[in-house]
Amino acid sequence: MRHLEELHDNGWEKVSSAQLGAQLGLTPSQIRQDLSCFGAFGQHGYGYDITQLSGALKTILGENAKLNAILLGAGNIGKALLCNFCFEQCGICMKAAFDINPEYVSTKIFGVGIYDAKELENYVKNNRVDIAVLCLPKAAAEENAALLKQLGVEAFWNFTNTELFPPESDAIIENVHFSDSLLALSYMLTERKEKNVEPNKRLCG
Amino acid sequence: MRHLEELHDNGWEKVSSAQLGAQLGLTPSQIRQDLSCFGAFGQHGYGYDITQLSGALKTILGENAKLNAILLGAGNIGKALLCNFCFEQCGICMKAAFDINPEYVSTKIFGVGIYDAKELENYVKNNRVDIAVLCLPKAAAEENAALLKQLGVEAFWNFTNTELFPPESDAIIENVHFSDSLLALSYMLTERKEKNVEPNKRLCG
Repeated sequence: MRHLEELHDNGWEKVSSAQLGAQLGLTPSQIRQDLSCFGAFGQHGYGYDITQLSGALKTILGENAKLNAILLGAGNIGKALLCNFCFEQCGICMKAAFDINPEYVSTKIFGVGIYDAKELENYVKNNRVDIAVLCLPKAAAEENAALLKQLGVEAFWNFTNTELFPPESDAIIENVHFSDSLLALSYMLTERKEKNVEPNKRLCG
Repeated sequence: MRHLEELHDNGWEKVSSAQLGAQLGLTPSQIRQDLSCFGAFGQHGYGYDITQLSGALKTILGENAKLNAILLGAGNIGKALLCNFCFEQCGICMKAAFDINPEYVSTKIFGVGIYDAKELENYVKNNRVDIAVLCLPKAAAEENAALLKQLGVEAFWNFTNTELFPPESDAIIENVHFSDSLLALSYMLTERKEKNVEPNKRLCG
């Protein structure tokens, strides 16, 4: 969808699965097969109408679902998300943020009110909360996630760098584990350097 | 590795592949097979010594590789990373940050000097840079990534929410695409809700 929007911004109106594949590093048949999971898109010999396809993908991804979110932990990462990330564009309404720091409580960040963490339970009982964005310190993460889950919150966007629930939990979780990502990067780089320098001393393969 | 460190912090000294599997939602044989890619760890009937295994994983992941990084774009996300993310713990030395905003230039964030973006090219020519952390606006991302690549930087930690290079590029990239992650979350939630409400009207499957 990001790519289709970029094409649209650059004046494209239609695109074939061959073009999309080449641009995204996939085969045309992967493109067609993946899309066919969700319905019939595109026309043989014409390709995909970009506005139509990107609108359909938006609906599929839930951008029109109007989900309500709250954020826990208005420290630097939390604040950076509130200030920079366009939740609206993903169809999410960011309703409230919670923190234990009295300096933050009763202020607003980018229009979002910050409430005392003590009010969390009451808030969730009295308002529909679809997604909890967790930007808490690791030590507070599990406990708060368990509380929210018990109160009926099903989906968690997790920035706490720890696993929120045991593997058998039915919570819906998207982890943004910064250190995993950076370690993956340095692993790939280190591996390439080793391969170039001493091809017989590689760790793997 | 994160999990092993948690076990260690909780007083564990050894762990079996069966335990690790149950804790991580993997089979014991997946654990054993994955680790066997990188060497011989653990002892039959004893399991893994946690300190030993986590030390070995650190080395494999490049935490001892002492890689140098620079950061481009000291706005909110960049600042949040500099203030909160422990690069050192991932074996990365954050050497310098660059921005075009004169308000930031010549200041320091958490000990990291912010330089004028004009000095970037000179800096990279005169210093070893292994990893570039890109926190730039989308519009400036591709151009700067191309410049850095041309100057010899091979690895990119990408927070720009856009693809930096065409698929055929040999650059090493780890994307942290916030909106992809949040849309994946809302897709999973929307799908579950639809499944519960109207089982015959699901989009996929």
